[in-house]
Amino acid sequence: MHFGNGYGSQPHAWRMPGVPRGGATDFDAQVRYAQAAERGKFDFLFLPDFLGLDTDISHHPSMLTLEPLLTLAAVARGTERIGLVTTASTTFNEPYNLARMFKTLDVMSHGRMGWNVVPTSDPTSAANFGKAPMQRQEKYERLHEMVQLVQSLWGSWGEDAWIHDPASGRYADASKIQPVNLQGRHVATRGPLPIPPSEQGQPVIFQAGGGDYGLQVAGQYASGVIGATFSIDDARAQRTALRRAAQAAGRDPDEIKFFAGVMPALGATKREAIDRRLQLGQDIFPSRVPYLGQMLGLRLSESRLEEPLTEQELQMARANPGDPRSATALKVAREGWTIREILAHGVIDYHPTPVGPAEVTADHMQEWFEAGAVDGFWVSIDVFEDGIDAFVDGVIPILQERGLFHTDYEGTTLRDHLGVPHQYGLDARLAGAEG
Amino acid sequence: MHFGNGYGSQPHAWRMPGVPRGGATDFDAQVRYAQAAERGKFDFLFLPDFLGLDTDISHHPSMLTLEPLLTLAAVARGTERIGLVTTASTTFNEPYNLARMFKTLDVMSHGRMGWNVVPTSDPTSAANFGKAPMQRQEKYERLHEMVQLVQSLWGSWGEDAWIHDPASGRYADASKIQPVNLQGRHVATRGPLPIPPSEQGQPVIFQAGGGDYGLQVAGQYASGVIGATFSIDDARAQRTALRRAAQAAGRDPDEIKFFAGVMPALGATKREAIDRRLQLGQDIFPSRVPYLGQMLGLRLSESRLEEPLTEQELQMARANPGDPRSATALKVAREGWTIREILAHGVIDYHPTPVGPAEVTADHMQEWFEAGAVDGFWVSIDVFEDGIDAFVDGVIPILQERGLFHTDYEGTTLRDHLGVPHQYGLDARLAGAEG
Repeated sequence: MHFGNGYGSQPHAWRMPGVPRGGATDFDAQVRYAQAAERGKFDFLFLPDFLGLDTDISHHPSMLTLEPLLTLAAVARGTERIGLVTTASTTFNEPYNLARMFKTLDVMSHGRMGWNVVPTSDPTSAANFGKAPMQRQEKYERLHEMVQLVQSLWGSWGEDAWIHDPASGRYADASKIQPVNLQGRHVATRGPLPIPPSEQGQPVIFQAGGGDYGLQVAGQYASGVIGATFSIDDARAQRTALRRAAQAAGRDPDEIKFFAGVMPALGATKREAIDRRLQLGQDIFPSRVPYLGQMLGLRLSESRLEEPLTEQELQMARANPGDPRSATALKVAREGWTIREILAHGVIDYHPTPVGPAEVTADHMQEWFEAGAVDGFWVSIDVFEDGIDAFVDGVIPILQERGLFHTDYEGTTLRDHLGVPHQYGLDARLAGAEG
Repeated sequence: MHFGNGYGSQPHAWRMPGVPRGGATDFDAQVRYAQAAERGKFDFLFLPDFLGLDTDISHHPSMLTLEPLLTLAAVARGTERIGLVTTASTTFNEPYNLARMFKTLDVMSHGRMGWNVVPTSDPTSAANFGKAPMQRQEKYERLHEMVQLVQSLWGSWGEDAWIHDPASGRYADASKIQPVNLQGRHVATRGPLPIPPSEQGQPVIFQAGGGDYGLQVAGQYASGVIGATFSIDDARAQRTALRRAAQAAGRDPDEIKFFAGVMPALGATKREAIDRRLQLGQDIFPSRVPYLGQMLGLRLSESRLEEPLTEQELQMARANPGDPRSATALKVAREGWTIREILAHGVIDYHPTPVGPAEVTADHMQEWFEAGAVDGFWVSIDVFEDGIDAFVDGVIPILQERGLFHTDYEGTTLRDHLGVPHQYGLDARLAGAEG
C-alpha cells in the first residue's frame, strides 16, 4: 500500500469529514492507518520520499511532510507483520548514515524493512543540498556504489558474530566483524557497522522508475520493483524485462517481484464512486480539461466542464498514442459522462483507476495478475481515514474468496512476505561481476 | 539521564541477571527504560552518538549499537513528557537532512527534542565517510554554518503558515513559507522545509565539550550544556564561563543551563554499593592499576589488586594535579580499601561517583547545586534494567523531600522543562551579529 502525506492520494483528502485536523503531522493517525493495512494483510507499506517542497502549498498538502524513516519507526513500533519500504536518495545521503538507519529500522521492525534505491535528479532537491543536479550517468554510478557500500556495511557485522554469553563474558567474535574498506569514485567507507543482523538478515532492496539504467539496477539488486503502468501489455513487458535483467545478472528471475500501481475509486455503486472522486478532486478538474482534450485529439475548454462531449466530438476523437491513458479516457467519454465526470474516472491519474463497487477493483487485479502482468500491486488509497478500511473490508475478501490473496501472513519478515531469498552483505553471485 | 548502549554505563552491565538477552537491539527494553526515567520525572534523556565501532567488541558492547534518532522515535512513541536529546555530528551530515529529521522528531514527540551539536574529529568516524579528520577551525566553522542553516530551515515554514481550513480549502499561507537561500563555505541549502512547528516551535540546542570554540558555540546557541567535571570549583567555573559567553552573545545568562555528570554507585550500604561495582567492573580493573598509580604518584602493579596501599605508600602518595580525580582517589585509598576496591569507587570513571545509600548521591547533588556549580545533572546509570528504578525510587524522593526537585512535570515540552525561552528559526538577537 502506498503510504503518503498523511491524508491520502487525492488532492482534497485533507478536507474530508473525519480526517484528523493535524493529519500531516499526526503520528497516531499514521500508525492507525498502518494497522488498518496490516488488518488487510498487505505485504508492505511503501513511502515515497521527496527532498523539498513539491507543490503549491496554498490549497494542497505536499506529497510528504515528515521524514519517512522516522515515520516508519513510529509505524514499526505500532505494527507486527506488515513490511515497511521507503525511498531514500542515493544522491544526497552518505552510505554509512543510510546503512546505519536502515539496519536499525530492520532490527526495530524485526526484519520488515525495504530500501527503495532512487537517485535524485530534481533541481529543487539538489538546491536543498547546495548542489546542481547530477548528470544521469554520474547519478547512476553513484547509486551502484551506494548500494554496494551499504550492503557491504550491512554484512560487516558477521551474521553469527554476536555471541552475547553473560556466563563466559564473550560479547562478540571480533574476527567476524570486519571493515569493508571500500573506495568508490563518489563515496567511500571503512566500516564495520556495529549492528547485528535482523530477523531477515538485512533490508530488502526495491527499485522504482524505468529506463535502461533503472532496469540494470533492478536486475542486479532489487527484490521488489514499484512500477507505474497503464495496460496489461505494458505491465507484462516491464515484468518480463525485469525478469530478464535479473537473469542476466546471474539471478533466478523469481527473485524479483513486480508491483503495478492501482488507484481504486470505490463506492457502493459506480455513481457513488464517481461522486466521491468529484468531491475529492474539486478545484483540480478545470485545469485538467485542456490536457484531456489533447488525449482525445480535441480542443476542450474549462467552460465545458459540466457537459458531455458532443456526438460530433465523439466521432472526431482519437486516443492519443503518446499517452497510454488515452484509450481509457476515450472509452469513458463514449459512455456519455460530463467532462468533469470523465476526469473523476481518474483518466489522468498516476495509475489505473477501477471505478465502482469492490468487485470492479478485484476484477482489475485478477485480470492483470492472471495475465502474468504483475506479481502484485501497490494500492493507492484515496483517503486514508476511511479508504483503507473500505479496501480491506471490500476488495480483500473478494480476492481471498477467489484464492488470489493470502488470508494471513505466512511468515514474519518482508523477505517471507515477498518470497525472496535470504541475503546478508553483498550478493555473493554479484560480488565477482562487480569487481 | 544518560541513555547509552542499551545496557548501562558499566562495562559488564550486559552480564547482569535479568538483563534482556538482546539488550543492545531490544527496543521494547529501551522504551521501558525511558518510561522508568519518566516515572522519575527526569527532564530529558541524553543519547551520545558515535559514527563507528569504538571498542574491542570481544568482551564489551560498543557505546552505541543503534542509530540514536530512530531510537528516540521509538522512545517518543512510548513516553509522554520526558525530553529527548541526542548528539548528531555537524561534520558528517547535511543541514537539510538533519533539519528534517530533528523537526520530524520534535513534531512526533510533541515538542520534546533537543540536538546536541557536536563536530566530529575522530579518525575512525571520518574513515566511515571516506574522509580524513577535519582540522579544528574548519570543523567549528562548519558547525556554525550547520546550526544556522538548520535553524533557518526550521523557521522556513512560518510559525502560523499552516491554515488547514477544510471549509475554505486553504491549506497554508504560501507567503509565510519561504526559502532560506543560505550559502556557507562548507554547506548550503535553499529550503524551505515542509514541516510545521511543534508544540515547542523547534528543537532545543545542546552543546557538550569544552575549549574556547565549544564555549562560543554554547554561548551563541545552546540552551543546555552537557558538562564533564570532577569538582564543585571546576563546575562553578565552567557554569560561570558559559553564562558569560551567553551574555557576550547578547543573551540572558539564565537561558543557558549547565548539567554536570554524576555516576552513582547505589547500594543499601557502602559495602553493597562497592560489591555491585566490583561485579560490574570485573576484568577492567587490572588494566587500570598502573594509571591509579600515576594519579597517586606511586608505582602500582596488577599483582597488588587485592591489597590496600601500605602505610609507607600512603605517606608517599600525592594527588597528581594533572588529573582532577586524583584527590578523590587519594581520599579513598586512605580509607584502607584494597586497590580493586579503590577502583570500584569509580575514581577513574568519567564522572564523580557517590558511593553508598541513596542519601550519599542526594547529598552530592544538593551540595553541587547549592554551591551554584550546576543547574542540574545528567545521571549515568550503571545497569538500566534495575538501576533506573533504584535511582528513581531511592534518590529522587529524597531530592523531592528536600525541595530540590519537582514532583511532576510542570509543562509538556523540553523548553518548559528547562525553563528556556521560545525560539523559532534563527535567534533574532544573533542574526545580525552573525551577518
